[in-house]
Amino acid sequence: MSDRDLIIDRYKDLLKTYLKGKSETALYKGQQFSRKLIEQQISPDDVLSDHVSVLHELFPDMSEELKDSFDFLLEVMIGYGFAYREHQSLRTRQR
Amino acid sequence: MSDRDLIIDRYKDLLKTYLKGKSETALYKGQQFSRKLIEQQISPDDVLSDHVSVLHELFPDMSEELKDSFDFLLEVMIGYGFAYREHQSLRTRQR
Repeated sequence: MSDRDLIIDRYKDLLKTYLKGKSETALYKGQQFSRKLIEQQISPDDVLSDHVSVLHELFPDMSEELKDSFDFLLEVMIGYGFAYREHQSLRTRQR
Repeated sequence: MSDRDLIIDRYKDLLKTYLKGKSETALYKGQQFSRKLIEQQISPDDVLSDHVSVLHELFPDMSEELKDSFDFLLEVMIGYGFAYREHQSLRTRQR
């Protein structure tokens, strides 16, 4: 299992736990997990893409329109992915 | 109407156009719009938050579980919002 697969699996577990109990603790774990994702240099469009994969699995009956709305958001988020990678490169140059 | 309201309105229009026709052109407009959002220093968590507001309006029958899944994603994306603002500040310092 690749690092990326492990991360998606962990994300799925955290999301499922939140959906089951809707506790503040589970939300807080999501917040902490974002640090880990950022450390791993995973860009925001990749997070969204993983989130959508998990949604397709958890909610297979989701409407086509809703699925399409994610394609649009993903397109918008890709621009942020570029900005994010530029940020990584600026940080590296400053070290 | 504030600049922010105008942006949300434009986002909603672009998303609706995409959902109606699902054309590549409409997706491309989304990609171009992300540049405008970045220029306006709108962070990725704000984009997601606006997207979710538009979804609530377009799909009022969306399940509670699906709504909750967005709360979780938003929590994760807030971490990226911080990184994004740090990026803005690094860029400003480099000028």
